Amino acid sequence: MSNVLVIGASGQIGKQATQKLLNAGHNVTALLRNKDKISDITHSALSVYEQDLEDDFSAAFEGCDSVVFCAGSGGNTGPEKTLLIDLWAARNAVEYAREANIQQFVMVSSVGSDDPDAIDSPIKPYLVAKHMADEHLRNSGLNYTILRPGSLTDEPGTEYVQELVPSNDEARTIPREDVATAIMYSVDNPKAYNRIYGLFTGDQPLKAVIQ
Amino acid sequence: MSNVLVIGASGQIGKQATQKLLNAGHNVTALLRNKDKISDITHSALSVYEQDLEDDFSAAFEGCDSVVFCAGSGGNTGPEKTLLIDLWAARNAVEYAREANIQQFVMVSSVGSDDPDAIDSPIKPYLVAKHMADEHLRNSGLNYTILRPGSLTDEPGTEYVQELVPSNDEARTIPREDVATAIMYSVDNPKAYNRIYGLFTGDQPLKAVIQ
Repeated sequence: MSNVLVIGASGQIGKQATQKLLNAGHNVTALLRNKDKISDITHSALSVYEQDLEDDFSAAFEGCDSVVFCAGSGGNTGPEKTLLIDLWAARNAVEYAREANIQQFVMVSSVGSDDPDAIDSPIKPYLVAKHMADEHLRNSGLNYTILRPGSLTDEPGTEYVQELVPSNDEARTIPREDVATAIMYSVDNPKAYNRIYGLFTGDQPLKAVIQ
Repeated sequence: MSNVLVIGASGQIGKQATQKLLNAGHNVTALLRNKDKISDITHSALSVYEQDLEDDFSAAFEGCDSVVFCAGSGGNTGPEKTLLIDLWAARNAVEYAREANIQQFVMVSSVGSDDPDAIDSPIKPYLVAKHMADEHLRNSGLNYTILRPGSLTDEPGTEYVQELVPSNDEARTIPREDVATAIMYSVDNPKAYNRIYGLFTGDQPLKAVIQ
């Protein structure tokens, strides 16, 4: 079990990931802007660290083994925040992780971010930001795990996914809960090091795909 | 003398750079969205290639030795275009240059883009995009020349600059004409390979600084 920093822990994926990581026995540091947003989770292994991601948040990395970046979480926040959070805060998180000798960096990315030109969509600017953040992570020397979920839904998780889906198939969906479960299976798991997973609902057990 | 592709040749810097490169004896391919915007330059060594930078523009690189990227040109176009042009089109230009075995890539960047966190300014999202584009170029294996001018003015060029200025000093200015002159001195000049130049008006001859 390890000390996990969850960046963006009050988001729709982040909160479920925090809960699942705690249930799995990890210690979690939840990094978020407003601690009231996570007041419904109470657990002795949870620490909360309040910090705006547009400022320096390097102190949160102290004593952590793994980092999960799930801030931002969508293409609907406007392109200025896309540049400042989805791209720059993610880039800074990678740099802070390097300086703190973090063992593993789990990035929640997006379907389509491998090739933003393949999609004719209003979210292309968002995919550009995710692509460049993923590239920065892959070049960082850190052990990385990149999760690229399809279109997100609020359905209950099924824990079944489909491998080998064309990565620009925007029609494919996945519940946010399954993304959170994929985070939980990835953390502290050397088999997930330096791997990129597409996540789409399908017929293969998620646990077997990642572990 | 070489074959130079100028990307963004109808911009305020691009047009002056095109003229200076032609005057210096180079062949220039001017890549722009609307060829009417460069109809005031007529020269037998000028070819015009009309293409939107949001589409595939790789064909323009054929037969070129050097590439100059000066599209975008400012922080005032809105953050969506910042992502699509200043970041993604610049990234794609680097990839096309690699595929075409281009000898040198000259990037017009900006003061402050080395460390966007050092500036508390509304143009921070723009500096993030320029930083990541510069990083992609530096990691590309291409011979790069990165120009980081101060605040741009429309004054006539002086051809005198200042070295060793703190790179986040936004108050320092430089005429666009001097940036165009710096491009001209950089192209086809091995001494400018893998160098980053801050450009601010000062008392040192620009030609000596670059050549």
